Amino acid sequence: MVEQLLAQVPFLRLDEKLVTELLTTSLREEVEKAGFQRVVIGLSGGLDSALSLYLAVRALGAENVIAVRMPYRTSSPASLADAQLAIDDTKVQSYTIEITEQVDAYFARFPQATVLRRGNKMARERMSILYDLSAYHQALVIGTSNRTELLLGYGTQFGDSASAINPIGDLYKTQVWQLAAYLGVPEPIITKPPSADLWENQTDEAELGFSYQEVDAFLYYWVDQQYTKDQLRTLFPAPFIEKVMKRVVQNRYKRTMPVILKVSNRTIGQDYRYLRDAGL
Amino acid sequence: MVEQLLAQVPFLRLDEKLVTELLTTSLREEVEKAGFQRVVIGLSGGLDSALSLYLAVRALGAENVIAVRMPYRTSSPASLADAQLAIDDTKVQSYTIEITEQVDAYFARFPQATVLRRGNKMARERMSILYDLSAYHQALVIGTSNRTELLLGYGTQFGDSASAINPIGDLYKTQVWQLAAYLGVPEPIITKPPSADLWENQTDEAELGFSYQEVDAFLYYWVDQQYTKDQLRTLFPAPFIEKVMKRVVQNRYKRTMPVILKVSNRTIGQDYRYLRDAGL
Repeated sequence: MVEQLLAQVPFLRLDEKLVTELLTTSLREEVEKAGFQRVVIGLSGGLDSALSLYLAVRALGAENVIAVRMPYRTSSPASLADAQLAIDDTKVQSYTIEITEQVDAYFARFPQATVLRRGNKMARERMSILYDLSAYHQALVIGTSNRTELLLGYGTQFGDSASAINPIGDLYKTQVWQLAAYLGVPEPIITKPPSADLWENQTDEAELGFSYQEVDAFLYYWVDQQYTKDQLRTLFPAPFIEKVMKRVVQNRYKRTMPVILKVSNRTIGQDYRYLRDAGL
Repeated sequence: MVEQLLAQVPFLRLDEKLVTELLTTSLREEVEKAGFQRVVIGLSGGLDSALSLYLAVRALGAENVIAVRMPYRTSSPASLADAQLAIDDTKVQSYTIEITEQVDAYFARFPQATVLRRGNKMARERMSILYDLSAYHQALVIGTSNRTELLLGYGTQFGDSASAINPIGDLYKTQVWQLAAYLGVPEPIITKPPSADLWENQTDEAELGFSYQEVDAFLYYWVDQQYTKDQLRTLFPAPFIEKVMKRVVQNRYKRTMPVILKVSNRTIGQDYRYLRDAGL
């Protein structure tokens, strides 16, 4: 299945060995530089968090990786089982912490809340649990958002997109598939349709309105190759181009720190940014 | 009291009228630019969130500002009452949403959890509520972290430091006092000792180990005036300098986006940063 995918977008094919080496080396370095040994990862049962887990285990050893499953009462039991496959295969320590009580206690005030509001609250509850376990175990939170989602803003700000270090944020979804297959992520996790698991039979591609190969190819030409709009139009339909560009631009705020209104000469994140600025 | 404070650090004195004009104009512009009219603010009863509220009301009108009180069962009733003073004075719409059930449901698993873990979980629960109300009311979340806390990293990442727009992030705490007095923030909020209200009689200054005037003066010379270490040593005791510098550097991660491990030529937040990069 992964080979079929890549055949459609051959320019996205990675050198699996080299990229694995790069990512595991830099993950180890970043964790150590921050003064840590251990990491904690939320495992949804999906592809992205599984790849982060496998990379972390390669980088740091299974004994330094803690996987956390955080199901809600409506989460698919298949997702929970798939996450368990990855835990069993990698032999990492794991937690299973239900988020149902916390989330339902809040929404008791808002029984009409939409599925979107509920999904975002769940994502932020999971983030706050990962950060709590991070403090408890002195373990850094490892990110699980791929480059495609980050560019599209397809995720919850201060939720699943929050982490200390994200080893897969520079990989398009198509490349996540390729690397996951290379690293031996269990087959059921690779072959099932990507889903945020917010409602039954939800799939990313149905919700987004395009396939990952399509959008990965487009983002590659636009972001990496810096094709002009005219060049892009020779490759992709105009409505699709508009739709994707609009998403990327509208969700830009999710990829930046909060805007600080400027009154000083050295505003944090604007003029005051580097360690160099700390005289170090 | 504010005048006494400023007499000790006269170089921190702001032109109150000008800064108010700057901040309210840019707040209005940023909110509109993002396509919004309304904002939502978590009101703790403390000084920082009160100043953000008063600035937002000046910028957008009381009818476009929603204040949210989110007490935990051990939160000080005085804090709740102080927040109410600001709500009554500004006549904004308000919510009071308890976080006790959500937080306690989680910590039932960890009865031994430290006060720090509990405090961080509370801060993140409050963030997730503000973002939920943000979606519900189509209102941007307004930040309430001042420049002193942001530099010191004295706050919860993805908790109280999370927002869409922060109108006070460029003001030292001493300047927050000055501006709050100018804008008519109720007296009890101005005169009480700053506190994160995580336990009884907690005060920021006791926890940090220095006063806000001291550290604001130091940060001004270091960050704004770019004094060298030698120059700083003529003004401040060496152990204090080391202590503050260490905090600022160690908490640098709180002021940046998650680190994305790099494998592409155009990594989000590194080489791919500007709207210009989106060809727009």
